[in-house]
Amino acid sequence: MKYCSYCGHPVSQKIPEGDNRPRFVCDECETIHYQNPRIIAGCLPIFEDRVLLCRRGIEPRSGFWTLPAGFLENGETTAMGALRETREEANANARIVDLYTIFSLPHISQVYFFFRAHLLDEGFSPGHETTDTRLFEEHEIPWDQLAFPVVTQTLQHYFNDRKDDQYPIRSLDIIIDRMRQQAQK
Amino acid sequence: MKYCSYCGHPVSQKIPEGDNRPRFVCDECETIHYQNPRIIAGCLPIFEDRVLLCRRGIEPRSGFWTLPAGFLENGETTAMGALRETREEANANARIVDLYTIFSLPHISQVYFFFRAHLLDEGFSPGHETTDTRLFEEHEIPWDQLAFPVVTQTLQHYFNDRKDDQYPIRSLDIIIDRMRQQAQK
Repeated sequence: MKYCSYCGHPVSQKIPEGDNRPRFVCDECETIHYQNPRIIAGCLPIFEDRVLLCRRGIEPRSGFWTLPAGFLENGETTAMGALRETREEANANARIVDLYTIFSLPHISQVYFFFRAHLLDEGFSPGHETTDTRLFEEHEIPWDQLAFPVVTQTLQHYFNDRKDDQYPIRSLDIIIDRMRQQAQK
Repeated sequence: MKYCSYCGHPVSQKIPEGDNRPRFVCDECETIHYQNPRIIAGCLPIFEDRVLLCRRGIEPRSGFWTLPAGFLENGETTAMGALRETREEANANARIVDLYTIFSLPHISQVYFFFRAHLLDEGFSPGHETTDTRLFEEHEIPWDQLAFPVVTQTLQHYFNDRKDDQYPIRSLDIIIDRMRQQAQK
């Protein structure tokens, strides 16, 4: 951020009065521009005993398999966003059962929501950002070809919870030390 | 939003290629400026059988009682944000027990997280944006002086769940029809 989105003048990083961390503040109109974590909402779509996965056609992780999910839009509930992304990425009709996993990813300032959902029919197909959509039984899941740790962990919890048919909502953090990652390179 | 925060030129509302809703797009550098819901994280701080509430010293709802909560910052987990807000608003030392209530408020594009927390001692006091902090037993809760429906609902669930000492995580939506609100005025 270099310019004020309200008046177009340059911004500077400073700690506003009564605050305790640096913000972008307009040099001219003094508007404070806060930057906050973003929410990603998605579904774990189930049809009989199989899970619907989407093969990503865009970066990051193009070519890897994921659960349908994307950025929550203004004016949506998390469940509405999850169903919209399931339609957009997989042209799939689903019905929300319940919230299932929530992940904080502080290193990229994201919070993920995955909802368990019933796929209403097999009439799904790849959306714009997807190259393939497929139902997987547990033994078919391409564990080493999954796009993101939040997808892997959600699937692991699901197949484990399915044994008892009990699906408690789980709040999880994924902590990645970027400094250590850099040092290891 | 009137100006591009990257290059300072004017922005226009248009639907980018491959998208399906209007965004602010820079007329000059074509940067798309997405706007997304924000997350508010807070605690339900418990000391023995009492709940810590804060009296708001700022708008909105100045003078009304609330649970300590505020906007999640970049780089935080939801639990870290909840504890930070509890320190900032009530100078209170707490320990997270578990996530408890999650609310989508699509009319204001907000998602709330409240965590059950143990207050570690009675050494709390009002922070900058708070005029009073107090522990309330159930029969003392000022139900008609609570700041927000998310606070009322979280407290109602808590006192109800406490009877069985079972506190399932709850995902809730608060749907307010602004058009209808306007029409009723």
